[in-house]
Amino acid sequence: MSLKHLGPGSQLPPLQPGKLRLYSMVFCPFAQRSRLVLAAKNIPYEVVNIKLKVKPEWYLGINPSGMVPCLQFDDGRAIPESLIVSEYLDNAYPENKLKPSDPYINAVHSVMIDSFGKVITPFYKFLFGDQSAGEDLLKSLEYYEKKFENNYLGGDKPAFVDYMVWPWIERLEFLKQKKNLDLNETRFPKLLAYIERMKQVPAVKETILSVEVYDKFFKSYSGDEPDYDCGINA
Amino acid sequence: MSLKHLGPGSQLPPLQPGKLRLYSMVFCPFAQRSRLVLAAKNIPYEVVNIKLKVKPEWYLGINPSGMVPCLQFDDGRAIPESLIVSEYLDNAYPENKLKPSDPYINAVHSVMIDSFGKVITPFYKFLFGDQSAGEDLLKSLEYYEKKFENNYLGGDKPAFVDYMVWPWIERLEFLKQKKNLDLNETRFPKLLAYIERMKQVPAVKETILSVEVYDKFFKSYSGDEPDYDCGINA
Repeated sequence: MSLKHLGPGSQLPPLQPGKLRLYSMVFCPFAQRSRLVLAAKNIPYEVVNIKLKVKPEWYLGINPSGMVPCLQFDDGRAIPESLIVSEYLDNAYPENKLKPSDPYINAVHSVMIDSFGKVITPFYKFLFGDQSAGEDLLKSLEYYEKKFENNYLGGDKPAFVDYMVWPWIERLEFLKQKKNLDLNETRFPKLLAYIERMKQVPAVKETILSVEVYDKFFKSYSGDEPDYDCGINA
Repeated sequence: MSLKHLGPGSQLPPLQPGKLRLYSMVFCPFAQRSRLVLAAKNIPYEVVNIKLKVKPEWYLGINPSGMVPCLQFDDGRAIPESLIVSEYLDNAYPENKLKPSDPYINAVHSVMIDSFGKVITPFYKFLFGDQSAGEDLLKSLEYYEKKFENNYLGGDKPAFVDYMVWPWIERLEFLKQKKNLDLNETRFPKLLAYIERMKQVPAVKETILSVEVYDKFFKSYSGDEPDYDCGINA
């Protein structure tokens, strides 16, 4: 199946018996959350990539919100929303559990995921040109800088919480190199070490994109049709 | 322990060995979510009620966001956020599980909880005087009107999803009687039958407040110090 992003006029690829499908977009951090979980748990699936700005006519019939990710089963049933899809995958495929079994630790991790909204808001403001949001973004990251008691947010190996926050952490390097975000060693020693550590995690290696590819995509993003496909096999 | 709401100058009641504590506010629907779960699962706990507009000095040291609910253990550790607290309680006390064990059904319920944000936004706009938000509120409720395949949103008995949405559903009767929300039998036959059914659920009976008490509270709400205590033993 082609990974090329589908838009208006495209045909919905037929569902395959026994095959799990993820509707995604290569540069979407929310969809990446679920792709990281699928990779970390070695769950076989196929991807159908969607042009989010110019959607195929059939996509709203599958996910009325029009967003990705959306997980679909071979009988047509579908689950939307990155956290719900990711949690479903962790529950339905109990091998290599990513969420902690201890209810209290699970709650602590849920708070870290929930609080990440405070990073995401200034992240997009800064990404789309509001220089003044840079300091807000760095302040919001200080909360996580203080959370590293172990090598990973989730403990001594990457857990569900790591995969839920990683997509935006990965893009910080792009913001630093191409948008002058002042993410420095003095202020963020643990976060920067974490980034290097996460880059060695197999699931991260499977989905990571380079600073240059992000740069190419975001330069095209203000237009009517962003260059979605520049991230495929990049 | 007194249920009276605490404000500036109050003393933090000492933690009791082996006692679970919930910081709450009698009229807060988010806190009510967790009180419903505690009641439905028969979990013993004590309540410390907080004046949310004029908080005690010590409360930000327990929950930096200043919001309720917040669950606290006898050793001082605390868990914030209504959904996280409620999920923690359901996980940590496995008897009478409220969340479905089937991962797909759990995901379907999670979507219903997640989508409830679309009710909450117009709910508050309408509550605080924006008449034009009434139709938005009713439209958002149509999604749930269509979800009743069984007696409860969660199936043939009240489940986690029912307790997560109920606090705002309970307050619809107040909006109908006192604010002229057009919640009628023709448009919402299933939702109105559901409301009557839920009123018979023991956990709901423990936390429900009358239309008159809501009216008294919300009339006091625009002032500096709302009449928080009018809901105690009401």
